[in-house]
Order: sequence, then structure tokens, then C-alpha cells
Amino acid sequence: MTEVHVHGAHATVQAPGLEDEVAVEEPLEIRVDGAALAVTMRTPGNDDELALGFLFGEGLIDGVRSAEPTLEANTVEVAGPLLRDVAARSFYTSSSCGVCGKGALEEVAVHSEVARAGPELSRDVVADLPERLRQPTFDRTGGLHATGLFTATGELVCVREDVGRHNAMDKVIGWALREGLVPLHPHVLCVSGRLSFELVQKAAVAGAPVLVGVGAPSSLAVRLADDRGMTLCGFARGGRVNVYTGPERVR
Amino acid sequence: MTEVHVHGAHATVQAPGLEDEVAVEEPLEIRVDGAALAVTMRTPGNDDELALGFLFGEGLIDGVRSAEPTLEANTVEVAGPLLRDVAARSFYTSSSCGVCGKGALEEVAVHSEVARAGPELSRDVVADLPERLRQPTFDRTGGLHATGLFTATGELVCVREDVGRHNAMDKVIGWALREGLVPLHPHVLCVSGRLSFELVQKAAVAGAPVLVGVGAPSSLAVRLADDRGMTLCGFARGGRVNVYTGPERVR
Repeated sequence: MTEVHVHGAHATVQAPGLEDEVAVEEPLEIRVDGAALAVTMRTPGNDDELALGFLFGEGLIDGVRSAEPTLEANTVEVAGPLLRDVAARSFYTSSSCGVCGKGALEEVAVHSEVARAGPELSRDVVADLPERLRQPTFDRTGGLHATGLFTATGELVCVREDVGRHNAMDKVIGWALREGLVPLHPHVLCVSGRLSFELVQKAAVAGAPVLVGVGAPSSLAVRLADDRGMTLCGFARGGRVNVYTGPERVR
Repeated sequence: MTEVHVHGAHATVQAPGLEDEVAVEEPLEIRVDGAALAVTMRTPGNDDELALGFLFGEGLIDGVRSAEPTLEANTVEVAGPLLRDVAARSFYTSSSCGVCGKGALEEVAVHSEVARAGPELSRDVVADLPERLRQPTFDRTGGLHATGLFTATGELVCVREDVGRHNAMDKVIGWALREGLVPLHPHVLCVSGRLSFELVQKAAVAGAPVLVGVGAPSSLAVRLADDRGMTLCGFARGGRVNVYTGPERVR
């Protein structure tokens, strides 16, 4: 028999011969005007930002709404109405999944503008972003992803952690919505893991011209970033970085 | 302008000052009796196994069905009928998401039996599984997850790679279904990344008594494994391993 004691975003596991800290993963139900819309597996905390960022990334809202989380019930209530009808659909997103409830290939892509000119960045700053992402946070569990919002000179503006990489980005974008920083034209997003299609899409919808990752991009991530005129950088580690698209923004 | 040339599961990226190999990520539409049921972002290959493993993990089929992939169209046709009606639902799974289309918290859990006694394993074998997982495969891109099916003595039976960790496991379980190896009572599953709730759930539904990961488990992964009587091992690297639940199976 193993015991799990939850303390906020972390939990202590007590098993025979083992005591360890793990990241908390729990379902969050996103409700709009009282009706359940989506369930996401996430790390508790900043659930209001998560809901706003998720709905914005799906093209369901275009600005700030009231969002009231109830941590004990694992729910967040968002004020409607939504920009389009999704009543017939429900979403479920696991700890590394972004957009859900889509039944046709052409629906996978959410509309986003081609990126504006955006900032120019030094290659050294880009390669160093993952280090700056890690410093203010301290993941004791090895189980959390992080997304950071940076200025063009590499100053950290906001960082969020989550078991789901898409959730961490949703939280940052939800925070930026509240702060009036969306579209993110002068900013840079940096993620702690790999670069999938969905992460590029979320960044594109939020108007971020530059997305940097510690890990590898997928083929479709590169294609989408190229199509949207974004700068996509991968394998940013140890002072090095690969620039896959939009190299004109990296000096 | 960046060019992406796809060759099976890998793609070559040509950008100014950069030529690199990345993992292919493309949408796959899973169709049942001609009707679209789900879209998953996956690495092409073994799409029939992926569809069967996905449907089995969702409790929508309980055995082998005909599954015909069309690689050019990114579709796979599965013969119905399904065990329950999901006509009103559609699924979309991103490159790290498993089960989708669920609108209520209680629906997140798919029914699975409590694990049988299962095998006894040496701790050294468990700690060495990730090494054995890597040897037969060669991910040139740094962008692929792997799942392996092993015997109790650590012999590799099947390995599959994908940009989505859940897809890699679906492919292995779909393969095992075809081979008549499900439920996986005498076997061990090993994954190259972190251990989320959904991966434990897929392993549980397939009857695997032991799940090993290179990375960290989440709180809910530990709780579900404990509830199902499974052995859950994390941080299997460098000859060490943490046994979070079911330590009686590890000598």
C-alpha cells in the first residue's frame, strides 16, 4: 500500500523503502456559463490563467473573461458566451495534450495571423533562455514542464510549470491576456521540452514571433512555424541553438 | 524559407545555415466503418497497430479487428461495430495526449481489472530496461518517445517509437493484440519518458502488471497504479530505480 499526500503542486509518496516527491496531476473541468466544456489533466494552480489561455488558443475567446477556480472541486467557471458554438463538443486533454474534440484533419489548425516583424535577438541570448527559465523555478520532482515569457533581451517576464507542456503555455498566455500583453509581438516564448505542432500553434495564435525549445521540433512544428513567419529554435542548450525557421530575427 | 522533406518517420530540414533531421509528426484520422472517430498527431508507421491499441485502451473494442491504413491520406479504416456508442463524440489527441472527447471528470477513468499476481522481477533487470529499450532503435532526431514490451527476464519482445508517448504505447498494445498476447499478465511495459495517469491507464486496461519509466511519475499515476495493484517504477537509469507501488514483484 502506497500513500500519496498532496501539498499544492507537489505530493509526497510513501512506499515500502521509498519516500519521494512527485508532481501533482489532477483533472480540471473547464466550465463556461455553468456547462462543462473541457477536462484537462493539469498541475493545480493558476487554473484561471489555464482556462483563459486554453480558450484563447482554441479561438473561443478573444480577450479577458471572468474565470473563477474552485481548487477543491477541480473546476474553473468562465463567463461566456464563446465566439463560436462548441456545445456539441467536449474536450479532454491529458497531461501533454493541447486541443481536443476535433474530428477532421482540417480542423486541427486554428486560425492565426502571420507573425509581425517582431524583435531581433542575439543568438547568445536565445541559447541561454532555458537556463534563465530554470532559475526562478525549482522542480523538486523532475515531472514538470515549464514555459517562460521573455523580453527580446532575455528578461524573464512570466514563468509557469505544469505536468502538461501545453498547460504551462496556456497558463503563460492566460496571464499575458490579463496583463494586456497579447498579441505577444515583442516577446519570446521558451519551453522546457520538445516542440510539437500544438505548441507552435498556441504561440502563433497568441502572436508570439519567436518560440524557443530545449528539445527537438517535429516536422509539422517546423512547417507551421515557417508558414506563419515565426522564428523556431530548438535544442537550446549549453550555449548552442538550432534555428529552424525565421533566422532573420537571430543575430 | 525552410524546406522539410519527409522520409518515413524522419524528415530532413534545410534552413539557412542549418541541415537537421527531425521526427515526423502528422495527423492520423482513425475511421470506424467509414466514419471519422478520432484524430491523433503521430509519427507515420504502424498506423493499424496504433488504431487498434487506441480503441482497445478506450474500451471500444475487446479484440482484433481489421485495420487498413492509407499512408498517403493519413487515415486508417477500422471495421466496426464498437462496443459502445461514441457517435456523438470526436477525439483529437495531440502528440502527447491519449484519450480524448471526455466531458466529465468521472469519465476520465476507463474500466480496468486489478492486476493479477504477475511476474517477479530482479531489481537489476528493471533498472536496465531503458538501456535495452534504446539499443534496437535509433532515434536520430531526439524527438521520439519509445515504448517496449519485455518478458520478466528483460527480453525485448516489441518496441515502437512515436512523437507521442501515448501513441508509442498504443502501437505496442495494438501489436500485442494481433499476437494474442493481451492481457499482458506475464509482461512488463517500459516507456522512455515520464509516467502520466493516461499511460498507467493504458497499461492497466491491457492487463500489464508492471510499468517502468525513465522519468518521473505524477501523483495520479502513482494513485491509479496502487489502486489497480500494479507495480510502478520510475527514474530507471544508471542501474537505479524507484519502486512507487507494488514492490512485492521486485526482488
